[in-house]
Amino acid sequence: MTIKDVAAKCGVSVSTVSRVLNNHPDVSKAVREKVMAAVEELHYIPNNSARDLVKSQTSTIGVVVRGVGNPFFASIITAVESEAEKHGYSIILNHIKSGEDELTAGAEMARSKRLKGLILMGGCYDYSPEQVASLDVPFVCCTFTNTFGNLGKDSFSSVSVNDRDVAKCAVDHLIANGHKKIAIILDSICDRSISELRYKGYLEALKSSGINPDYDLVEEIQFFDMRSAYEGTLRLIDRGADFTALFVIADSLALAAMKALSDRGRRVPEDCSVISIDGIDMSLYSIPTLTTLIQPTEDMGRDAVRTLVSVIEEGGKHVHLRYDTTLREGGTVAPPKKN
Amino acid sequence: MTIKDVAAKCGVSVSTVSRVLNNHPDVSKAVREKVMAAVEELHYIPNNSARDLVKSQTSTIGVVVRGVGNPFFASIITAVESEAEKHGYSIILNHIKSGEDELTAGAEMARSKRLKGLILMGGCYDYSPEQVASLDVPFVCCTFTNTFGNLGKDSFSSVSVNDRDVAKCAVDHLIANGHKKIAIILDSICDRSISELRYKGYLEALKSSGINPDYDLVEEIQFFDMRSAYEGTLRLIDRGADFTALFVIADSLALAAMKALSDRGRRVPEDCSVISIDGIDMSLYSIPTLTTLIQPTEDMGRDAVRTLVSVIEEGGKHVHLRYDTTLREGGTVAPPKKN
Repeated sequence: MTIKDVAAKCGVSVSTVSRVLNNHPDVSKAVREKVMAAVEELHYIPNNSARDLVKSQTSTIGVVVRGVGNPFFASIITAVESEAEKHGYSIILNHIKSGEDELTAGAEMARSKRLKGLILMGGCYDYSPEQVASLDVPFVCCTFTNTFGNLGKDSFSSVSVNDRDVAKCAVDHLIANGHKKIAIILDSICDRSISELRYKGYLEALKSSGINPDYDLVEEIQFFDMRSAYEGTLRLIDRGADFTALFVIADSLALAAMKALSDRGRRVPEDCSVISIDGIDMSLYSIPTLTTLIQPTEDMGRDAVRTLVSVIEEGGKHVHLRYDTTLREGGTVAPPKKN
Repeated sequence: MTIKDVAAKCGVSVSTVSRVLNNHPDVSKAVREKVMAAVEELHYIPNNSARDLVKSQTSTIGVVVRGVGNPFFASIITAVESEAEKHGYSIILNHIKSGEDELTAGAEMARSKRLKGLILMGGCYDYSPEQVASLDVPFVCCTFTNTFGNLGKDSFSSVSVNDRDVAKCAVDHLIANGHKKIAIILDSICDRSISELRYKGYLEALKSSGINPDYDLVEEIQFFDMRSAYEGTLRLIDRGADFTALFVIADSLALAAMKALSDRGRRVPEDCSVISIDGIDMSLYSIPTLTTLIQPTEDMGRDAVRTLVSVIEEGGKHVHLRYDTTLREGGTVAPPKKN
């Protein structure tokens, strides 16, 4: 199907069809309607390749996502796509594995796809100026920021929660319900990333309530996936760790931890309370509903795009936006049993 | 960071650096190593844009996915990306909403991104030759095929299960466990798509066991999402439908249905059995573990790419691959209570 077929169908010239498709004003309404009807009937789709080749960059934003299966990112990506469309940008998604480098992936994509900017999801918290030097487009860290690195604040944008404060809130909620023996499931206590930050919030909550941290209640699972969280929780139980509540650093991991508790005959919340962070859809449908601190994913996705577009189009300044979370009281937290 | 910086760092000419980066043979091993060390130290990333502009098509496969949040697609996409990499192709993902047209989205992407081929996930089952005429690259339907349409079999490829047979298997399993009052949660009984096919399998299973279908046990939820499945299950219960087992056409919807059963005080499987199709990760962690028919998502993702690459590179014939599912007996199916 080519533009010639459309022209033949309407009995007009190819250049007339072209003028209609490019919204030139010098075409009568009657001709315009006839051409558009033929375009529709013939399912003709204009070929934009030539135009794209001429432009040095298409209006495309790249999104590098670490972990295709992480359900937390799904609603953010939806918000990013919808906001990008409003601003006339298309989105190219690139999923990378947990071991891959999002900066290299982003830089390669920015050049080969001639991107206007990048949104990074699930990246590192410790970039150096040398590492980002190869990125020749503006970028926004989405759901994280450069806590452990030494990038200038004016060289990138970020939209995120304060991981340390949110973790403290979660553990404070357990303490307010009477818990003192609180275990934690996390990747690692010192990964210079989200897991380390949330561990610090956990320690801070314990400390501010006069509870001595007990490393026997810390389970480092190394990998951010449900299987690792499930197996880590089994290990925690099976080595006889003494806890009445569990703080799991992400919802999807918390659902796997609840399964492990169930498989060892522990009821939630009667025998063990569980709290987490994120607010993924699935956590609404666990039995009981997961008590969690909900991140405003729609706002974060929308603002990541708005920030990037402002930098791209208006030379706007880079900004660092922090969001509050909302406690959703599900059914997984209750006071500890009295012995 | 440019190629000049790399050349200056090594004390060689720009053209020497270029020859190293393009793997020309006429460079000594010592120079090659020095240049590569500098490339690494300076985090220099070669600019491929010019080369991309010259080539009429980059070696890229487009993947159009209907529904970013559908966890069933996550493991297929991972397999697609991994297999594409083996064949030297990069992947561009495009998520569309349930109301959008994947053919238009695919055709536009194929042209603007100069794709070599397309993989469609979650598309329609009733394409006509006119509709696909605008696609000027080969395409593979992944997880579905053209059951209701009239495309020539040699004009596209497909990798999928037989939805009707799989649904019959699921319902047969409930019948084998003694159930006769079997309700179904699905989008629609006549959507000319997956939902209609699985409904036909449900009817066939009932019929072959001499059970009269009862439309009062059918709940059409219209939208393929957890909230709709949850609300649909509540409606089914609240209108007094008399059933001892529930067939839900997809895992994610089944998890939401289990939550609704729980919220109405019905235990799974004691008061109601549940079975589904897919085998998403999350269904391993429901309490109890969901009994489901597992689709071989890794095989399907891998074969979608292999098929497409064969058509692109060798002019291979289009093929239609069907896969068997595997019953995973979780804990959600048991014989009905005796009254």
